[in-house]
Amino acid sequence: MERLVVVGADAAGMSAASQARRRRTPSSLQIIAFERGRHASYSACGIPYLVGGVVGHCGQLIARTPEAFRDSFQIDLRLSTEVTEIDIGRRAIHARDIVTGREWWEGFDQLVVATGAVPVRPALPGADASGIYGVQVLDDAAKLIQALEGEQPRRAVVVGGGYIGLEMAEALILRGIRVALVDGGPEPMGTLDRDMGALVSEALRRLGVDLYLGERVLGFETKGGRLCAVQTAERSLPADLVVLGLGVRPNTELAKRAGIPTGVTTGILTDRRMHTAVDGVWAAGDCVESFHRVSGTPAFVALGTHANKQGRVAGINLGGGYATFPGLVGTAVTKIYGVEVARTGLNETEAARAGFEFLSVVVESTTRAGYFPGARPMKVKIIAEKRSGRLLGAQIVGEEGAAKRIDVLAVALWNDMTVEEITSLDLSYAPPFSPVWDPVLIAARKAWELVEETMLQCR
Amino acid sequence: MERLVVVGADAAGMSAASQARRRRTPSSLQIIAFERGRHASYSACGIPYLVGGVVGHCGQLIARTPEAFRDSFQIDLRLSTEVTEIDIGRRAIHARDIVTGREWWEGFDQLVVATGAVPVRPALPGADASGIYGVQVLDDAAKLIQALEGEQPRRAVVVGGGYIGLEMAEALILRGIRVALVDGGPEPMGTLDRDMGALVSEALRRLGVDLYLGERVLGFETKGGRLCAVQTAERSLPADLVVLGLGVRPNTELAKRAGIPTGVTTGILTDRRMHTAVDGVWAAGDCVESFHRVSGTPAFVALGTHANKQGRVAGINLGGGYATFPGLVGTAVTKIYGVEVARTGLNETEAARAGFEFLSVVVESTTRAGYFPGARPMKVKIIAEKRSGRLLGAQIVGEEGAAKRIDVLAVALWNDMTVEEITSLDLSYAPPFSPVWDPVLIAARKAWELVEETMLQCR
Repeated sequence: MERLVVVGADAAGMSAASQARRRRTPSSLQIIAFERGRHASYSACGIPYLVGGVVGHCGQLIARTPEAFRDSFQIDLRLSTEVTEIDIGRRAIHARDIVTGREWWEGFDQLVVATGAVPVRPALPGADASGIYGVQVLDDAAKLIQALEGEQPRRAVVVGGGYIGLEMAEALILRGIRVALVDGGPEPMGTLDRDMGALVSEALRRLGVDLYLGERVLGFETKGGRLCAVQTAERSLPADLVVLGLGVRPNTELAKRAGIPTGVTTGILTDRRMHTAVDGVWAAGDCVESFHRVSGTPAFVALGTHANKQGRVAGINLGGGYATFPGLVGTAVTKIYGVEVARTGLNETEAARAGFEFLSVVVESTTRAGYFPGARPMKVKIIAEKRSGRLLGAQIVGEEGAAKRIDVLAVALWNDMTVEEITSLDLSYAPPFSPVWDPVLIAARKAWELVEETMLQCR
Repeated sequence: MERLVVVGADAAGMSAASQARRRRTPSSLQIIAFERGRHASYSACGIPYLVGGVVGHCGQLIARTPEAFRDSFQIDLRLSTEVTEIDIGRRAIHARDIVTGREWWEGFDQLVVATGAVPVRPALPGADASGIYGVQVLDDAAKLIQALEGEQPRRAVVVGGGYIGLEMAEALILRGIRVALVDGGPEPMGTLDRDMGALVSEALRRLGVDLYLGERVLGFETKGGRLCAVQTAERSLPADLVVLGLGVRPNTELAKRAGIPTGVTTGILTDRRMHTAVDGVWAAGDCVESFHRVSGTPAFVALGTHANKQGRVAGINLGGGYATFPGLVGTAVTKIYGVEVARTGLNETEAARAGFEFLSVVVESTTRAGYFPGARPMKVKIIAEKRSGRLLGAQIVGEEGAAKRIDVLAVALWNDMTVEEITSLDLSYAPPFSPVWDPVLIAARKAWELVEETMLQCR
């Protein structure tokens, strides 16, 4: 009987395992999944909502229990078990039970590396003080909630204004804590352009977050080994608690030591079927390098949607089917104090870096027909290639009902549509759902008018 | 100076006029627009919400006043003026002022026919009784509201369970009237498949509408010229008021008399630039025949979005620019008592009629991550071509946040995507917006699994 070993039993790993099981019976394929943490298959993206009390209990984030995997899928799931080495030559991994300390080698025929990502931790003075939290895995969240409830901190500093940073800032405000947010960029959420990021700043200020933008964190002040303030170039911010939201990097140490090649983004290299350069070894999720369909370059994007898709693709393929992961277009969404924020494709900086000549427009519209109760304001920004009019990227900031419209532009990007083609799209319309010209179509129209004007000037 | 005459000054006509003006100054192009009604450029789709009191005042539906057209666009807009003849040979139209009775000929160099649609009125006994209302134009709505407020009807019957019929049923319920709805089909909303239509029936019953399905209306009973009941094959339904929601047909009498060719759907034939078969004569909106991109056949769909787009295209072209209307995919959306309903592409009946071999799946999911507060149930149906897996159509019924997702599938249809390709789409995800697999992706996955199974069986 063949044996599949899965290293890392979260979204990517367990999607791969489940798909493999759909295609291969327990009598033909044994599946063992190792997970360092105490939980498998949970929604990491739900952590800020758990911390903020929007989601009441940690168990709600768990999509499937270990028992369900064992009983319904006959997947042997080993929690609290760390894989410390992959030996490609021997085709075996070395495992260590974190609780009992037991160590052993487990052979494999096929292997899925789904080791995820690790938070970027700054190498700054005081960075190892107690009171400084990352929120990468569910166990981190549990520790943070324990601190919030036990120590009753009054002031928190969130370092980094990306998606997780903003979501954590709101979560802490919901807990009644005074929150400062420090970000080195001119506006938070650096994956947006500055004009759209400014709208996010407004939302944060309305929420009551003290914003310190364009400031770098230089270190953490401690008193008796315990955090007491965050030092930036400009000031010292008193803090009982720090949450790090500086992003993540692919967790590839195991893979690299085993000789599995990684790419320019430091993620594991795979082909479109999620197979690595090593025979019978697959990789999926936050530890792999992806392909950006718009820039045409390698990309590292740690997101549950890609992890699930890549895991599914790996599982189908190693189970004997055929599936591909044809890249991503950089879609993301979040919500800050009732303000929805979404983006897809390239922002202006990314478009310039990829070598595109581009133009951009911002339009303001409403989520429903202007006269319909509940119509809320929203802004759409579109970035298009000069001359061709090809859509390169889009950003949306608006109130309830705004952000999910980014999906229309994500599908348009996927299909290499021009803004002219987008103006013709047959999108759904009724007054409770949209103005007669959907805001994304208005933006495409305006972008196309600008493309036309630019072409006329070129003549 | 050249003169453009526009016949019909609603969405299509005024979009054409405005776009023509953007490209041609008043010194090079004179624009005269004739409108039979007392209003121009209003949201006809808003009428049910006006009747239901959701929108407070008729003026809110008017996008632009006649003064705005005159002052900002220098378009000479003549309301309450009927065009009674188009003389292609003389290149002139015959106009009649409905208020003063004055008649005259007005010459044109270019002409836009935007005469809209007329409600289908059944040729049944009693159909001309007072108390029977269509709701095609804003003036109809005003009359109906007057009747509702003046005569205080207690029982209404809505004939026809399409979009307008359902929206009007809800509007009348909101007015405190007892409402019965009669439809000849097995479920209301015949543009959905029966299984999805059944969910609409449930919503209507919860709303308190008495449903009479599979019943044909045979006539209207009157007492002294006034409506008192609706007769179906099965029963007599007492009624103080009837609203007809039997759909519309293209209003092409003027065009046909002028010799402008019409197509199999009885709509005016145009090319992709909205030019008719007659030199210098354009047509746009509910009076034209469109092209269905999925079935590849002519289609008649009266909807504000198409009217606006077609009008814009005609205006750009007659103003000397270049634009096309490349057809539609049959997207529509509405909302009944908190239940959102959307569709795009072909339903099963339409797919069969177009000659496709197809399969279909229905999946149930939620509008947000299952654990997130406010997650509501929704169902997605996908219809795909057997073997190729090409998406043919989709239907969504669900609660708040469900329906606008149809746009993702409308864009996928536009680009001839297969359900396999759709499973890879990079759609936005965060717990307040979606499960990690968006419901439309779950449906595409399930459809693809079925396509694969079917292919294996064929071997």
